[in-house]
Amino acid sequence: MRVDINCDMGESFGAYTIGADADVLPHITSANIACGFHGGDPTVMRTTIAAASALGVAVGAHPGLQDLIGFGRRVMQVTPQEAYDLVVYQIGALLGFCRADGIAMQHVKPHGALYNMAVAQVALADAIARAVHDVDAELILYGLPGSHLLAAAARVGIPTASEVFADRNYLHDGTLVPRSRPDAMVHDVNEAIRRAVRMVKEGVVTDVEGEDIEIRADTICVHGDGPHAAEIARGLKEGLLEAGVAVTAPRGSRVAVRLTATTGN
Amino acid sequence: MRVDINCDMGESFGAYTIGADADVLPHITSANIACGFHGGDPTVMRTTIAAASALGVAVGAHPGLQDLIGFGRRVMQVTPQEAYDLVVYQIGALLGFCRADGIAMQHVKPHGALYNMAVAQVALADAIARAVHDVDAELILYGLPGSHLLAAAARVGIPTASEVFADRNYLHDGTLVPRSRPDAMVHDVNEAIRRAVRMVKEGVVTDVEGEDIEIRADTICVHGDGPHAAEIARGLKEGLLEAGVAVTAPRGSRVAVRLTATTGN
Amino acid sequence: MRVDINCDMGESFGAYTIGADADVLPHITSANIACGFHGGDPTVMRTTIAAASALGVAVGAHPGLQDLIGFGRRVMQVTPQEAYDLVVYQIGALLGFCRADGIAMQHVKPHGALYNMAVAQVALADAIARAVHDVDAELILYGLPGSHLLAAAARVGIPTASEVFADRNYLHDGTLVPRSRPDAMVHDVNEAIRRAVRMVKEGVVTDVEGEDIEIRADTICVHGDGPHAAEIARGLKEGLLEAGVAVTAPRGSRVAVRLTATTGN
Amino acid sequence: MRVDINCDMGESFGAYTIGADADVLPHITSANIACGFHGGDPTVMRTTIAAASALGVAVGAHPGLQDLIGFGRRVMQVTPQEAYDLVVYQIGALLGFCRADGIAMQHVKPHGALYNMAVAQVALADAIARAVHDVDAELILYGLPGSHLLAAAARVGIPTASEVFADRNYLHDGTLVPRSRPDAMVHDVNEAIRRAVRMVKEGVVTDVEGEDIEIRADTICVHGDGPHAAEIARGLKEGLLEAGVAVTAPRGSRVAVRLTATTGN
Repeated sequence: MRVDINCDMGESFGAYTIGADADVLPHITSANIACGFHGGDPTVMRTTIAAASALGVAVGAHPGLQDLIGFGRRVMQVTPQEAYDLVVYQIGALLGFCRADGIAMQHVKPHGALYNMAVAQVALADAIARAVHDVDAELILYGLPGSHLLAAAARVGIPTASEVFADRNYLHDGTLVPRSRPDAMVHDVNEAIRRAVRMVKEGVVTDVEGEDIEIRADTICVHGDGPHAAEIARGLKEGLLEAGVAVTAPRGSRVAVRLTATTGN
Repeated sequence: MRVDINCDMGESFGAYTIGADADVLPHITSANIACGFHGGDPTVMRTTIAAASALGVAVGAHPGLQDLIGFGRRVMQVTPQEAYDLVVYQIGALLGFCRADGIAMQHVKPHGALYNMAVAQVALADAIARAVHDVDAELILYGLPGSHLLAAAARVGIPTASEVFADRNYLHDGTLVPRSRPDAMVHDVNEAIRRAVRMVKEGVVTDVEGEDIEIRADTICVHGDGPHAAEIARGLKEGLLEAGVAVTAPRGSRVAVRLTATTGN
Repeated sequence: MRVDINCDMGESFGAYTIGADADVLPHITSANIACGFHGGDPTVMRTTIAAASALGVAVGAHPGLQDLIGFGRRVMQVTPQEAYDLVVYQIGALLGFCRADGIAMQHVKPHGALYNMAVAQVALADAIARAVHDVDAELILYGLPGSHLLAAAARVGIPTASEVFADRNYLHDGTLVPRSRPDAMVHDVNEAIRRAVRMVKEGVVTDVEGEDIEIRADTICVHGDGPHAAEIARGLKEGLLEAGVAVTAPRGSRVAVRLTATTGN
Repeated sequence: MRVDINCDMGESFGAYTIGADADVLPHITSANIACGFHGGDPTVMRTTIAAASALGVAVGAHPGLQDLIGFGRRVMQVTPQEAYDLVVYQIGALLGFCRADGIAMQHVKPHGALYNMAVAQVALADAIARAVHDVDAELILYGLPGSHLLAAAARVGIPTASEVFADRNYLHDGTLVPRSRPDAMVHDVNEAIRRAVRMVKEGVVTDVEGEDIEIRADTICVHGDGPHAAEIARGLKEGLLEAGVAVTAPRGSRVAVRLTATTGN
């Protein structure tokens, strides 16, 4: 009975700071680190990896569309080949810093519009999964349960983690209630924690219609922005631990431990 | 008696094409591939690696300053830490594509203003050499003979290649005649070839004052732009071969051979 | 009986050259100048305006999406407000150079995906037309006949020019045959010229089904890239002149004449 | 006996917020608005102008080097022509929004490294002054007293405002104590206010050696970041008012008043 807690990190850029990375980091087990396209920059990537690594938090790439001004949240008409290329590029860039820090990269989680587009577009999902596979077939691809992204990962033969949201409501088909609806969010933190515990321990969540639906929770996403990000992350972790759920990265909390040596390319 | 011929490649960007990569590639042994900062983009990086790899041309990273509009040629006041970070990032990005293509990266050659700044600034040279070392200590750093960059590489313990220019004149101290001077270039192709052969076979070049000075030539740089780039590259290669000089990448012409497997990070 | 010939210009960027601006410019009457988002840069804007101005070619802004790597051709999910803002910004930037050159700006023609999106999306078309109006209500908005863009311009009260393509086929509803279809283009130059003459003189064009449809031709777009861009532009201009059609910018060929004084903001 | 208080504004970008614009704005008389190169974006420019305009704060352009990641603070080797072009572009872009808002632009103040480089480099200063002049010869150029920038403005015949810093110490030659020195700043707010009052009323300031030197104070710069930015701005304004100094933009506090009509280009 275990689960990972992941959070987007390292999205600051140059003189601009976003997110409460330092406060949230102690309460998560996997950090999705921006790679310079939708956010993040080389210096932020290095310092974020160092901070995660020092706390034993596993590190993953968080590649986004090349739209800094839109923070990677705006849908763009990218071809599958373009998506493949920009994912390889960004994973590679983060890999450079992982190697320099002496740690192994654990996972990849696409950002924003790229993540959402890959839920629904098969060809795009395949391109992303192949990109991850081609850089390192041991990288774990994070995605929505039931999404084309996780199906594509299975086809290409890379490991996956099924991602759930404690603070989001679900439709009966297992997809998220769109943010445009008033009932998209679960605002009560304790309620969110109870839902998270149940997703992990029972594999079910109550949908917006009040019925239980099956859901697989390998990893829970917490948000790094908002005034209470760190409190929510800590509350979630403590709530899970109290419920007897181990909170650990997919390959153990010390995935990010320094390697004794780096070899080969 | 052998020498490498290197050329900057993959500097096209989006809809914009620069350089005659396809024509030059058959006549060189090492390709310095732009990494998206001063030129190049993810798609160009992938296709350039594929083209180089198919011809057995060794592949290296060609990181530049983050100044696309200035093509990385304008001096910028970057700190050594910033230089370290942008070099790690760009080598990593290219590494992603090398891994996806199943080849090993061979070398790193800084671009434009970054290259020139590292000739003269010790702290910047150290930062670049450390960045190369920290991503992969087997990467060969290309630089000017006598530069702080090669000295920094020696200090950090990574291999180097001493780069010469067949079509540039040298001052008595072994540095290049600045481009602002009318005698900066050797315009006659045959004269350039004779100079290249002599640099490789005898380790000397005639400086602008008419005296022979010592110079170490591990690799000869040819330019990929200009109307006659491919002819010059072919002429140089043939001239060297006729003079009994083997033309090969530092670790052999087939460095870029496809690996049978990629392992680890 | 008169018509304008317009062409996209000034899309080069930094070290990258695109298009045959200098060759095409003598054969057109209105230049749509890129404003630095999808292509172009400050230096290119200045030199392109100077070249157009010297030939009496009228100058307009050619604003695009902020997607340099995709050359503004990829659909992006921008809100009407974002579209308004990026159009005001880019018209303003070109206005700076027009004022410095002492000429008046004549028109605005959105580029690529922005142009295409505004054909179909009412709210986006309204935002673009308002942006043009708010910077200078005398600017002429170029757009497809029957498009939401021209309707929006009419609503906001700015002048318009109905744009046709000599080398494109039309569907029966007056829209362009999509480029994905094999019959999208009219490849024969003389045929294209005949079609252009007929569109101007008779207000009709033969659609892909062989029937004549009405079309209003205030301005004809020629393409500035392709190996024969200048020849096609010259041939079109000469063909029109021979058919007795005056070729002139909407406000006369000397719209771009230097002003004797610039006043106010 | 009057002085202007200016502050850099509108430097937020996309999802990134920087500065306390809304808090500082009520206490200043001139806003230097970033134009998208070192900071700012089209949407931020529009909303910042609207906020300034609503409070009667005069609006000016704050053009910077094209170095978003370095926030325009890193020296770059730009030619005078490049500087001219990037200043025309940015003033023009802001002019677009001023016209759309129905206000006149009042001034131009270069940002960061561009400002500092223009203090010392004559050719660069001339290029910037010419750029301002060529877009609108009535724009007021803000700069350090005694700088090449103000001298260049005088040569080209545009109005200037001599800028002082209440919270910075001065060397005996009237230049600022470099930030690298421990005595660069005046940390006590009341002391800063007293110095500001004296600069305005007596035209002198006590330098780091304890001697009074002459200084002309047309405008006082306050910083928009830092935890106490708004308090300091308010304190300074109140201190000046109490000392009988009128606090007003160079052309009066209502320079930013909406024009009844916009005319011409």
